[in-house]
Amino acid sequence: MTPARLPLFLGIDGGGTGCRAVLADGRGEILGRGTAGPANIASDFEGALGNILQAAREAAGEVSLTALRAGLGLAGANAGAAADRLRPHLPFARSTVVTDAETAALGALGDSWGIVGAIGTGSVYARRDGAGLRQIGGRGLAVGDEASGAWLGKMALSRALRAADGLIPGTPFLSALIARFGGVDAAVAWAVTARGADFATLAPEIVASRDPAALALMEEATAEVNAAITALQPSQPLPVVLIGGLGPVFAPRIAAHWTVRPAVGSALDGALALAHQIPD
Amino acid sequence: MTPARLPLFLGIDGGGTGCRAVLADGRGEILGRGTAGPANIASDFEGALGNILQAAREAAGEVSLTALRAGLGLAGANAGAAADRLRPHLPFARSTVVTDAETAALGALGDSWGIVGAIGTGSVYARRDGAGLRQIGGRGLAVGDEASGAWLGKMALSRALRAADGLIPGTPFLSALIARFGGVDAAVAWAVTARGADFATLAPEIVASRDPAALALMEEATAEVNAAITALQPSQPLPVVLIGGLGPVFAPRIAAHWTVRPAVGSALDGALALAHQIPD
Repeated sequence: MTPARLPLFLGIDGGGTGCRAVLADGRGEILGRGTAGPANIASDFEGALGNILQAAREAAGEVSLTALRAGLGLAGANAGAAADRLRPHLPFARSTVVTDAETAALGALGDSWGIVGAIGTGSVYARRDGAGLRQIGGRGLAVGDEASGAWLGKMALSRALRAADGLIPGTPFLSALIARFGGVDAAVAWAVTARGADFATLAPEIVASRDPAALALMEEATAEVNAAITALQPSQPLPVVLIGGLGPVFAPRIAAHWTVRPAVGSALDGALALAHQIPD
Repeated sequence: MTPARLPLFLGIDGGGTGCRAVLADGRGEILGRGTAGPANIASDFEGALGNILQAAREAAGEVSLTALRAGLGLAGANAGAAADRLRPHLPFARSTVVTDAETAALGALGDSWGIVGAIGTGSVYARRDGAGLRQIGGRGLAVGDEASGAWLGKMALSRALRAADGLIPGTPFLSALIARFGGVDAAVAWAVTARGADFATLAPEIVASRDPAALALMEEATAEVNAAITALQPSQPLPVVLIGGLGPVFAPRIAAHWTVRPAVGSALDGALALAHQIPD
């Protein structure tokens, strides 16, 4: 008889810019790590699959992928049938595929119940409690992602253009925003092709500015964060963890309303926790 | 001595979906017409130039383009240096290049002073008076185009998703909007890649609906139209002409505030008028 092997676990965090994998044993000891390119299974299925497998092989080293229990948090996993399409291509012994927002929430909360707001280029919120995980927001910049970096930049530019048109009062910040593009026409030409990440490059200045238009926008953004958390809070309020690039910006702004806690771990920790939850 | 020829005039209306040209003599008699594909000189310079020349040659027939005075209203003419780049390629005796919004305004107003709102897939406004033409709005869907068909569709879907997330009250119209896509995830997947023209396909139902969410959105859109007109009105109010697919929708809604008049002519008439204004 061969000796029974410890079960081994693989966690994969795959987002729009890159993919990370980690191999761990049953006690949480890290045995290997891997990285690869983007892993958005909705926008580029074949590329994402290749990167997921590359990061997994790098983390697994000598260990066969077929021996592993894998938890995968992937961008685009909630868009249509992308996750269903992926599953037959995964070589792992067992696997669970969820959104990268879900593994981020699991990582941020650890074993606790709570509410996670991930506010970076986009924005998405999740509550974890006895009923499982419920996610809201994360709808993309055209119709959502309120309070995100992309939303802040888009709103600031929209208001700067409205001020230039005489529709709302101008401020020094709004004037400077148009001037940095070289005028209204150039700002409009930029905005027409700008993506979320482009708009988000304007966010740090908005966050740091004491200009009345910037302060008003930050007030509105904070109200959006509070509204999303309020929509998720049960009658007995849960603690809130804010992650993402703008998490530390909004955390002190909502601390008067909710119990705010730091993140327990990363999205990769969440993916590993997901792998541990796979039943025998 | 050859007899002096009457000056001949060419009007060109070039937009994002097609290009039309008309040849006329000094008394306004139409001598020829031509059509070709899209003529947005900012998004596809070479293609636009080819289509402009094709429509022009078709309208000119036996007449050499080098003999004509041409007025061109072109999409993208305000974006950066596109119009400057185009001028050396135009074969006409003399020519003037402006935005298609400007020729639309000239056509809608004829010889009168007034304010034009062009509200279709996008939205743009202009005032024509003794000081010339002043244009506002028309900033594209990401940062502007308020009250346009694309804006109405985008806002309706955004609110439907917010209602689905419990952030605002739901209504039958908002629920039906999500249901028609097959649920929240499918609606989000559609919105991520939807263009202005796609969002605008939702506008007719919003306009026609008696649902409270749709009515509230139309109220806000009407307020946006009034705000743009207010920003352009001089102390002695000018008459207002609303054109574009949604012009007839908003015209009765603003009639209590302003003197609303029907359009005198089309954007092609405006382009021809522009050609007539070219000095000898």
